[in-house]
Amino acid sequence: MEKILNKIEELKKLKPEMFGKDYLLTWEKSQDDLEAILLVAEILKEMHKENISTKIFDSGLAISNFRDNSTRTRYSFASATNALGLTVHDLDEGKSQIAHGETVRETANMLSFLSDVIGIRDDMYLHEGHKYMETVAASVQEGYDKKILHNRPTLVNLQSDIDHPTQSMADLAKLKDYFGGLENLKGKKIAMTWAYSPSYGKPLSVAQGMIGLMTRFGAEVVLAHPEGYELLPEVLEVAKKQAEESGGKFSVTNSMEEAFTNADVVCPKSWASMEVMVKRPPLLHANDIEGLNALEKTALEQNAQHKDWECNEHMMSLTNNALYMHPLPADISGVSCEEGEVTEKVFDDNLYDTYTQASWKPFIVESIILLQKIANAPEKLEAMVNNGKKRLEA
Amino acid sequence: MEKILNKIEELKKLKPEMFGKDYLLTWEKSQDDLEAILLVAEILKEMHKENISTKIFDSGLAISNFRDNSTRTRYSFASATNALGLTVHDLDEGKSQIAHGETVRETANMLSFLSDVIGIRDDMYLHEGHKYMETVAASVQEGYDKKILHNRPTLVNLQSDIDHPTQSMADLAKLKDYFGGLENLKGKKIAMTWAYSPSYGKPLSVAQGMIGLMTRFGAEVVLAHPEGYELLPEVLEVAKKQAEESGGKFSVTNSMEEAFTNADVVCPKSWASMEVMVKRPPLLHANDIEGLNALEKTALEQNAQHKDWECNEHMMSLTNNALYMHPLPADISGVSCEEGEVTEKVFDDNLYDTYTQASWKPFIVESIILLQKIANAPEKLEAMVNNGKKRLEA
Amino acid sequence: MEKILNKIEELKKLKPEMFGKDYLLTWEKSQDDLEAILLVAEILKEMHKENISTKIFDSGLAISNFRDNSTRTRYSFASATNALGLTVHDLDEGKSQIAHGETVRETANMLSFLSDVIGIRDDMYLHEGHKYMETVAASVQEGYDKKILHNRPTLVNLQSDIDHPTQSMADLAKLKDYFGGLENLKGKKIAMTWAYSPSYGKPLSVAQGMIGLMTRFGAEVVLAHPEGYELLPEVLEVAKKQAEESGGKFSVTNSMEEAFTNADVVCPKSWASMEVMVKRPPLLHANDIEGLNALEKTALEQNAQHKDWECNEHMMSLTNNALYMHPLPADISGVSCEEGEVTEKVFDDNLYDTYTQASWKPFIVESIILLQKIANAPEKLEAMVNNGKKRLEA
Repeated sequence: MEKILNKIEELKKLKPEMFGKDYLLTWEKSQDDLEAILLVAEILKEMHKENISTKIFDSGLAISNFRDNSTRTRYSFASATNALGLTVHDLDEGKSQIAHGETVRETANMLSFLSDVIGIRDDMYLHEGHKYMETVAASVQEGYDKKILHNRPTLVNLQSDIDHPTQSMADLAKLKDYFGGLENLKGKKIAMTWAYSPSYGKPLSVAQGMIGLMTRFGAEVVLAHPEGYELLPEVLEVAKKQAEESGGKFSVTNSMEEAFTNADVVCPKSWASMEVMVKRPPLLHANDIEGLNALEKTALEQNAQHKDWECNEHMMSLTNNALYMHPLPADISGVSCEEGEVTEKVFDDNLYDTYTQASWKPFIVESIILLQKIANAPEKLEAMVNNGKKRLEA
Repeated sequence: MEKILNKIEELKKLKPEMFGKDYLLTWEKSQDDLEAILLVAEILKEMHKENISTKIFDSGLAISNFRDNSTRTRYSFASATNALGLTVHDLDEGKSQIAHGETVRETANMLSFLSDVIGIRDDMYLHEGHKYMETVAASVQEGYDKKILHNRPTLVNLQSDIDHPTQSMADLAKLKDYFGGLENLKGKKIAMTWAYSPSYGKPLSVAQGMIGLMTRFGAEVVLAHPEGYELLPEVLEVAKKQAEESGGKFSVTNSMEEAFTNADVVCPKSWASMEVMVKRPPLLHANDIEGLNALEKTALEQNAQHKDWECNEHMMSLTNNALYMHPLPADISGVSCEEGEVTEKVFDDNLYDTYTQASWKPFIVESIILLQKIANAPEKLEAMVNNGKKRLEA
Repeated sequence: MEKILNKIEELKKLKPEMFGKDYLLTWEKSQDDLEAILLVAEILKEMHKENISTKIFDSGLAISNFRDNSTRTRYSFASATNALGLTVHDLDEGKSQIAHGETVRETANMLSFLSDVIGIRDDMYLHEGHKYMETVAASVQEGYDKKILHNRPTLVNLQSDIDHPTQSMADLAKLKDYFGGLENLKGKKIAMTWAYSPSYGKPLSVAQGMIGLMTRFGAEVVLAHPEGYELLPEVLEVAKKQAEESGGKFSVTNSMEEAFTNADVVCPKSWASMEVMVKRPPLLHANDIEGLNALEKTALEQNAQHKDWECNEHMMSLTNNALYMHPLPADISGVSCEEGEVTEKVFDDNLYDTYTQASWKPFIVESIILLQKIANAPEKLEAMVNNGKKRLEA
C-alpha cells in the first residue's frame, strides 16, 4: 500500500493536461502526460492486485468501434472500462443502419448522448483511419458545443493507420519496469525491426507507434526493414525530431543484423509493404473480395522474399542480451506457422516478458480514461485507496 | 435542481398506470401515462446533465431481441437500461439454438428467469411483429402465473409492424419542448408525409406511430403519400377517432404540397408500398434471398416514380416556418444518396432540431422502464435527487 | 427469510472444497461439493425471489467462449455472472485474431489479466472439448504461478464433449426439489434414454452428464439407446463404479420400453451416433462444409431408423407416473418437427416441470462461481441476507 501512496506522491509532481482531451497520437502528448499515464497505470495495477475497487463511474457507456479484428485490445478496452464502472456498447457496423447512408457526424452524435468514452480501431485504411478518428472527435465536439450532448465523450485510439498509442505506452510501461525507470532508457539501443510473416499484410502502426514514442527518452532507436517496407514519412520525421530533442538517436537501415547488434531491446514484427498498404483501401471500400485476396497474395509473396528476417538464437546472440518484445500474437516458426517472425526457442525463452508486456495494456487504457475524466487524479486515487472499497467483497 | 423538483411536483398530479405493464402501442396508454413518460424523461435527462445517478437496479438483465438492424434504438435501449443499472443480454437468434425448433413461449421464459425487461424490434413482418410481441408477453405472463418466473419482465416495443412508440414519444418530447408545452400542440398543423428514398423498402411504423400519437393533442394531423403507400387501416381508424376526441383533425392526401402548406411541423420520411410490405413476410420466412432482392428492386422502382416527394427549400417555403423532423438516418440528396428524402440544405439547417429530437429517445426508454418498475415514481425520483449520488464520482 | 437462514445453517455443516478450483466434471467433485452447490443455488434463488442483492463483485469480467450455439446456457452464464456483479466479455473467435495463429495458452492468459471466471462450451469436438478446457486451465495456472496474472480465473464447463455439469446439476436440483430431498433418490428408477430427432446430430454430454451424476445417489439408473449410439466408455465406467459405491444400479439396454417400465424419472433426449461424433471433428477442423453437410445427412438418416424412440403417452403409461425431464429445447412432434423426441401432449402435460428444471441453471452457475470465489460461503451469504441490500431499490 505504501508503494501505491508513493506513486501517488510522484504523480502529484506532474502537470498532465489530459482532462477532457482525446488520446490519438503519443507525440501530441506532453512528457508529463506520458509519465502520468505510466504512473496511474502502475497505481491501478497495484490496486487491482490489492483487490481495491477503481470504479469512478456508477453507470455510463463506453462505445467501441472495431473496424478490424482484435482480441487483446478489445479485451483491454472491455476490462479497463469495466474496472472504471462503464459498460461497453459495441458499434457493430454490420448490425447497424450505417449501411443506410448515415454520416460519421451523425453516428458519432447518436451514440454519445449517454456515453463517456469512444474507443476506435481503424488500422487497415492508410491515410484514413486517423482522419476518421479526427472526424468523430470533431463531430462530438460540435454536438457538445451546440448543446446536443451533455458531455463530450473522449476518444481513445485503439490503433489507427498512424499510431497504436495504447500498445506503445504498454510497451513503455514494460521498459520502465524492466530497466527500473524511464531515465534508464537513455543510451539504450532499441531495435524496431521488420520480421517475416506468412499470415497477412499487417498494419504499420505498431512500428510507427514504437519509433514515435521511444525516441523521446534519449534512446538510440534503430528502425530496420527490407526495401519497400518503409513507414509513413511523417512519422519518420517525428521520430527524427524527437530523437534530436531528447539527446538520443534515430536511424533507419535495411539490415536486421545491424539493428540487432548490441541492441538492448528488440521488437521484430511484421508489417505489409507500403505498396500493399496503399492499394488496400480502395479495394476495401469497393468490398472487392477478389481484389483483396489477390493483393493479400502479393503481400505474402513480397514477404516471402525476406524469410531470413526471423528472430532466432543467432540474431539474439548479436544483441546485448536484449529484451525481446512483441505486441502479440507473434508468428512463431514451427508453432503457428512453418516459418515466421520468431523461433519457438526465442519466443518461449521470453514468454514471461512478452506476457507481462501485454499485461500492461488494460491498465494503460484504464489510466488514459481516468486521466481524461478526473481533473485531479492523485486526489481521486488517494481517496479510493484510503477508502479501500474491495473489488471482491469476500 | 429546482427545475427537477418542480417537474416531480407536476408528476405527482398524474395517475399513470404503467407499473408492471407492457408498452406496445401508445394508443393503449392513457393521457396520464403519456404525460408521465414525458415528465420522467425530462427529469432523467436533467439528472444526467447534473451528474446524478438514476440507478434503481443493483443488478439484473434487460433482454434485447432485434429482428432488424438498428443503431440508435439499440443504443437507446443499451444506454437507458445501463442508466437504470441493468445489463443488456442480446438474444442473437443466429447464435442461439432458436433454429433448433424452439417455440416463442419457451424462449421467452428461458430468457426471463433473472430478467426485468424485454425490448423487441420486429418491424419488417407485416401483421406479425406486433403479434410476436403479444405472444412473448402472454408467455412470460403464463410463466409468472405458474410460478416459473419470480418476476414478470415487462416488454418495450422497440418498433413493430404497427407502432414505433419509443420513437413517437421522443418526437412528442421534442414537440413539447419546442412549442413550450403539450397544450400548445392544439391547432398546430403536423404533416406526416411520405418522401422518396433509394435505399430500401422501409417499415410503416414510424408514420403509423406519428399519426397514432399526434392526433391526441388537438393538432391538425395530415398524412400524405403517393397512391399505393397506404398505412394499415386499423391505425388510420385510431388516428381518426383520436383526432375527433381531442378536438383536432386528421386527413389523408396524395399531395405533399397540400400537406406542407402552412404546416407547423413536417416529418417527410420514406416507407415501402403496401404491396411490398405484404409480399415481404412470406419471402423472409422462406429465407428466399433471390425473391427478397427482386422485391427490393420492385420497391425501389415504385419509390422512383415519386422522386418529386423531396423535402427541399421550395417545400419548406410553403410551410409556416415549420419544424423539420426525422427519426434519422435520413436519405439526404447529394450526401447519402443522389436523390433522397431531403436536400442537404434543409437537413443541415435543421440539424440541431433533428439531433435533439433523437436525444430524447434514450431518456424516453429509460422513463418507460422506470415507470414499469417503480410503483411510486415521484417519490423514488425525489429520493434519488435528494440523495444526490453522483454518476461520475470525480 | 427463515427458509434461507435454515439453508445457510445446513450449508455450514458441509466441507466443500471448491474455492479457487475449476468445475469441469461432476465426478471430480466431492459429495459435499455437490450438496453445497445445490444449497447455495437454493439460497440464491430464494434471495432473488426476495429481491435481495447477491452481488459479491464491484467490477470484474467473466469470459465466455462458446464454440457451439447456445441460448439458455449463454443466458444462464450471463445472468449468473451479472447477479454476482461481473460483466460478460464474449470471446467471439470470429472477431478475434485467433485465426492469426494464436495459441490457446496465449489467448487464455491475454483474456485473464482482469478476469475472474472463464466459461467454455466446446461440445462438438469429441476427445477434444474437455482437453481444450484442461489446456486453458493449465495455461492460466501457469500464468498465475509465473506472476503474470494477479488472480487465477476459475473455469466453468458450460458443456464439453464429456460432461455438461451445469445442466446435470440443474437437473439434480429439480430432482431434489421434486422428491423432497437427495436422500429420496435412493432406489428411484431414472431412465436416461435416446430419442429420435430430425434436427441435427447432437452432442453426447447431456446423457453422459446424467449417468455420471445420478448414479451417485443410490438410484437405479438405466441408459437406453439404439445400437451404434453408445456413449464414451470412460463415462460408462464412472457410472458403473459410482452406482456400486452408492448402493444403486447402473445398466445399459437397447430397449426404450425396458428403460421406461416402472421408471420414476425419464429423460428421453437425442444424440448423434458414435460414428458421427468421431467423424465430425476432422471435418470441423478442415472447415469442410460439404463434408459436414454430408455427415449431417448421415446422422439424420441413422436417426430416422429409430423414429419409434419417441416419448409418447403409451411410453409414459409404462412408467411409475414418471417425472418427464428434458434440458430443452425438445424436438416436439407436430410442433417443432413432424416426428421428434416427444409428443405435444406429453410435452405440454409436463411443461411446468421442464421449465422449472431449466430455471435452476442460472442459480447453479451462480452458485458454482460463488463457491469458487468465496472461501466461507455460509458467512458471506448470511452477511448478505442480514444486510438485506435490495436488488431493485423501488
